[in-house]
Amino acid sequence: MQTKTQILERVKLNKPVLIEGLPGIGNVGRVAAGYLISELKMKKFAELYSHHFLPLVMLQEDGTASLLKCEFYYQKQNNLIILTGDTQSISPEGHYEVCEVILDLAEKMGVKEIITLGGFAEGKQVDEPRVVGAVNDKSLLKKYGKYGIDFGKEHPVGTVVGASGLLLGLGRSRGMDGLCLMGETFGLPLMTDPKAADRVLHVLSKVLGIKLDLTKLEKTIKGMEDRIRTTDKIHKSILEQIPKQGKEDQTGYIG
Amino acid sequence: MQTKTQILERVKLNKPVLIEGLPGIGNVGRVAAGYLISELKMKKFAELYSHHFLPLVMLQEDGTASLLKCEFYYQKQNNLIILTGDTQSISPEGHYEVCEVILDLAEKMGVKEIITLGGFAEGKQVDEPRVVGAVNDKSLLKKYGKYGIDFGKEHPVGTVVGASGLLLGLGRSRGMDGLCLMGETFGLPLMTDPKAADRVLHVLSKVLGIKLDLTKLEKTIKGMEDRIRTTDKIHKSILEQIPKQGKEDQTGYIG
Amino acid sequence: MQTKTQILERVKLNKPVLIEGLPGIGNVGRVAAGYLISELKMKKFAELYSHHFLPLVMLQEDGTASLLKCEFYYQKQNNLIILTGDTQSISPEGHYEVCEVILDLAEKMGVKEIITLGGFAEGKQVDEPRVVGAVNDKSLLKKYGKYGIDFGKEHPVGTVVGASGLLLGLGRSRGMDGLCLMGETFGLPLMTDPKAADRVLHVLSKVLGIKLDLTKLEKTIKGMEDRIRTTDKIHKSILEQIPKQGKEDQTGYIG
Amino acid sequence: MQTKTQILERVKLNKPVLIEGLPGIGNVGRVAAGYLISELKMKKFAELYSHHFLPLVMLQEDGTASLLKCEFYYQKQNNLIILTGDTQSISPEGHYEVCEVILDLAEKMGVKEIITLGGFAEGKQVDEPRVVGAVNDKSLLKKYGKYGIDFGKEHPVGTVVGASGLLLGLGRSRGMDGLCLMGETFGLPLMTDPKAADRVLHVLSKVLGIKLDLTKLEKTIKGMEDRIRTTDKIHKSILEQIPKQGKEDQTGYIG
Repeated sequence: MQTKTQILERVKLNKPVLIEGLPGIGNVGRVAAGYLISELKMKKFAELYSHHFLPLVMLQEDGTASLLKCEFYYQKQNNLIILTGDTQSISPEGHYEVCEVILDLAEKMGVKEIITLGGFAEGKQVDEPRVVGAVNDKSLLKKYGKYGIDFGKEHPVGTVVGASGLLLGLGRSRGMDGLCLMGETFGLPLMTDPKAADRVLHVLSKVLGIKLDLTKLEKTIKGMEDRIRTTDKIHKSILEQIPKQGKEDQTGYIG
Repeated sequence: MQTKTQILERVKLNKPVLIEGLPGIGNVGRVAAGYLISELKMKKFAELYSHHFLPLVMLQEDGTASLLKCEFYYQKQNNLIILTGDTQSISPEGHYEVCEVILDLAEKMGVKEIITLGGFAEGKQVDEPRVVGAVNDKSLLKKYGKYGIDFGKEHPVGTVVGASGLLLGLGRSRGMDGLCLMGETFGLPLMTDPKAADRVLHVLSKVLGIKLDLTKLEKTIKGMEDRIRTTDKIHKSILEQIPKQGKEDQTGYIG
Repeated sequence: MQTKTQILERVKLNKPVLIEGLPGIGNVGRVAAGYLISELKMKKFAELYSHHFLPLVMLQEDGTASLLKCEFYYQKQNNLIILTGDTQSISPEGHYEVCEVILDLAEKMGVKEIITLGGFAEGKQVDEPRVVGAVNDKSLLKKYGKYGIDFGKEHPVGTVVGASGLLLGLGRSRGMDGLCLMGETFGLPLMTDPKAADRVLHVLSKVLGIKLDLTKLEKTIKGMEDRIRTTDKIHKSILEQIPKQGKEDQTGYIG
Repeated sequence: MQTKTQILERVKLNKPVLIEGLPGIGNVGRVAAGYLISELKMKKFAELYSHHFLPLVMLQEDGTASLLKCEFYYQKQNNLIILTGDTQSISPEGHYEVCEVILDLAEKMGVKEIITLGGFAEGKQVDEPRVVGAVNDKSLLKKYGKYGIDFGKEHPVGTVVGASGLLLGLGRSRGMDGLCLMGETFGLPLMTDPKAADRVLHVLSKVLGIKLDLTKLEKTIKGMEDRIRTTDKIHKSILEQIPKQGKEDQTGYIG
């Protein structure tokens, strides 16, 4: 098997925005993406499989088993594509390959703007989580400057590991603008942080100009808990394989 | 060397069922497969070699050495193919590749149904081993519902690692139905569990509609012990390389 | 993504000398290369990207994020190309691939001579750092014999790991002469050693016949500190993945 | 770079025997091969390079640096090819690839018989080292039965890791007969065992029907010490990466 997308429905959109929320620290990106899909009643149109995912199937509660995958959802009204899924690549080379395959599909769909969602580990209790941002071109700072995103120098984020980072870097060379939104969180493994996801969604809804009712977020996360628990274990294994960074200042990020 | 099958005998079967029993926890799958081959007097018709196996040869007692391999056996009467062997892949990507090559051969042979056998580690003494099941399509639950297989939510299995899992997941996209039967076992490394294998074979004989005399199982296992001891060591090395999952709840599975 | 160079400006040089200074112990090579680029007002003409680099983007202080890369600079006056960058490959195979792609570009530019810069870890305080040298052909010992380089047997360097070594070894088979200059340094991780860089630049300027004002070196290093801090963390992760050598005699080298 | 052989001299031999002695436990194979090359005044005709070797160059005493490589020597009189070198592959897949490239060359040279040399770790002091053997076809047991090789069941060798094993296994499928000779040794890392090498050479000379003066062996080993020390460190790194086997019974083998 190679890394490949499987199209479930042919969809035409007009320069859609691609939003990525895959498993990561505090599950911020994934939970935010899941909530958007549910609130905006988005529809799945493609799946991505890769030999760079863990070699296993996940068991659902009904006794069915399926390969690990990423999923693409769309909504015509707001011209949105959301990418979420069970896992990220387990090898460094695989990360690059998976992101290129994601961008191949995005390019075909006419995507010119990517927003990646994640958490960044603060290493301590966070009462009012900041949303730290990064862009893949200096000119975008002005565009995204009015939404309360922290682009400053005070935050401890030095690198963005995984899809949230690579989609920005690799997207640039395809002429795609990119914004990464990272919600501040404690960063304990296997602990979903609804508060950070709430903050990220709050900023995102303003960036997209979409009204979003965030009151059901905690309830929705509860409904995702079973699946999250299983993929958390998978994600934890992956995290353990990626070289630690910034250990000395108690931070780190993957999303 | 690539991963490849070597055909020893051209065989024609009529939509045979493929049964997989490779090394894994408690050696449940492998021992069950070995007993079937012996009891049904099945004949080897193909071998599979891969650069994703450990880079070594195994010494037989007579002083001969041979590459690690998987083996395919057939029996015309019951339209069966059994896949067993010395090892599984030692890399995650290799697992996907080896399973695709297995399915390439299965597809050529007209296989439409796969049954994978294994054990799942309970982490404690098991007196009456359950047989936990998973299918690769919801519609199959009814078909396999009458054989005492535990498809419920009470068991602790969240993922199926290796060939027993991937053959189901990858087989689905080739239109093959898949059932995984996992015998409950303690899960200590290097400890073959005949009782779990007995339970799995008991269920399997009912699923296949084959009469199977299980009285000779323990004796047969004794005869396989030498070869099992060597491949156990190999398998242990592989297990150590695969990211642990579910450590906190003392379970895990590979088969 | 494959390993590939991206040409920013078509440049014609006359048998230029390629000087490599990538991250390594004491940051000797990288700091020396950075100083040369700054002092000789060199201009960037190409970048190199690879899926063998860590799967992440680095955040600059202004909030922009970019892929890890190597960079090629040139100066017509002295017929020089300098290769520096954020990182080296994180896998052994990747090291070979990245170096071959570097040499592909070097060959197209007409490079016949390579000088690689780095540090070697002495494992203790060094007051007057030696510059140890290695060549990729015996006949070069005479050519480089008059610059105070230690080609003798007394130093503890047994191997040169990474680009500084492979460019010499792989360059040989393309008919390129190669010299490696290694400044003696303590070898603590995450500690830039200006004194060793000074010594290496001192020798290098004599080899190249270029006048070089070294008084601003410490100040320039201060200006690089922010970027160095981030890539130091990255480089440390890589170092941890490369098998240790010569641990017993407290030495080791990568550059 | 791929794994590839570089031919230094076109040589025609008549069904030569290929003898392999690469670095391994006790350096038995490598030292035995080195002694043969020296005693039989054999000439190098080919080299093998691979991106599966460690990414470094080795420094010779004269200040020159060169890539890790394997080397092929020949002698017309006895129709012999000897393969020795600095290292083996550092990845499992690499082992398969390197051995296939070795066999590609062997096949072109008309090789029909391979003899691989190594040590096996006994885990304790050995006074009179046995020479344990393995063949890649049962019919060969008779051919090699008269030279005092231990093909019995009493020795603790269950697997042969690396080139000494794979050349036998992979050679079989090319129709090449294979014999592996393993000298019993303590098996401490970084400790060359001349006594085991002496025993292996003693048996080998009888198998080949060649008169071999073994009195200079210890002296020759002394002359190889410098190079052995460096590659021992390299080899130790590799050993640490290969999954341990048979740890519980204190044995293990690579050669």
